[in-house]
Amino acid sequence: MTTETLPGVSVTTRANVYFDGKCVSHGVTFPDGTKKSVGVILPAQLTFNTGAPEIMECVAGACDYKLAGSDRWLTSAAGERFSVPGNSSFEIRVTEAYHYICHFG
Amino acid sequence: MTTETLPGVSVTTRANVYFDGKCVSHGVTFPDGTKKSVGVILPAQLTFNTGAPEIMECVAGACDYKLAGSDRWLTSAAGERFSVPGNSSFEIRVTEAYHYICHFG
Repeated sequence: MTTETLPGVSVTTRANVYFDGKCVSHGVTFPDGTKKSVGVILPAQLTFNTGAPEIMECVAGACDYKLAGSDRWLTSAAGERFSVPGNSSFEIRVTEAYHYICHFG
Repeated sequence: MTTETLPGVSVTTRANVYFDGKCVSHGVTFPDGTKKSVGVILPAQLTFNTGAPEIMECVAGACDYKLAGSDRWLTSAAGERFSVPGNSSFEIRVTEAYHYICHFG
């Protein structure tokens, strides 16, 4: 079961563009102030650093990811999610577009 | 005056990826059913075809554009918008990321 829409949100019109456009996201804010982002990662291998803890929820496509301190690549596909600790990092390897919701905190 | 947020919308979590990622957008639906999209075009020169008429509103960055049947390039920057007829096309030339809201109809 994938999350196809996020209802009742305020969307930030300016995109976040990372890694020369290999990752593009838009921020959304819920009525209670909760912030998330919806985005896509295009075929690439990238390393992301976290400030706050993050939960990456895949809504379409798939990725392989490896958390900091692990030597194990795992797969996350549509309907699945993985958690990343705060002040940490993860590598992500995408061969088909990976569409996601990023939940913070 | 730029439109920084679109409040009270439902956002489609899966991105629209065009031209190998040179254009990425997310669809949004308003409570009355009106659909728009928020997106970004990265440095490139692209040709877009329209079905419905579109109004392209720039929220950050800038572009040059040329409507079908015109030989004149015009510039659109943050806070500005241009209209494209339905069943037509336009060329767009972007040298810095062009962030937009696309209004249909």
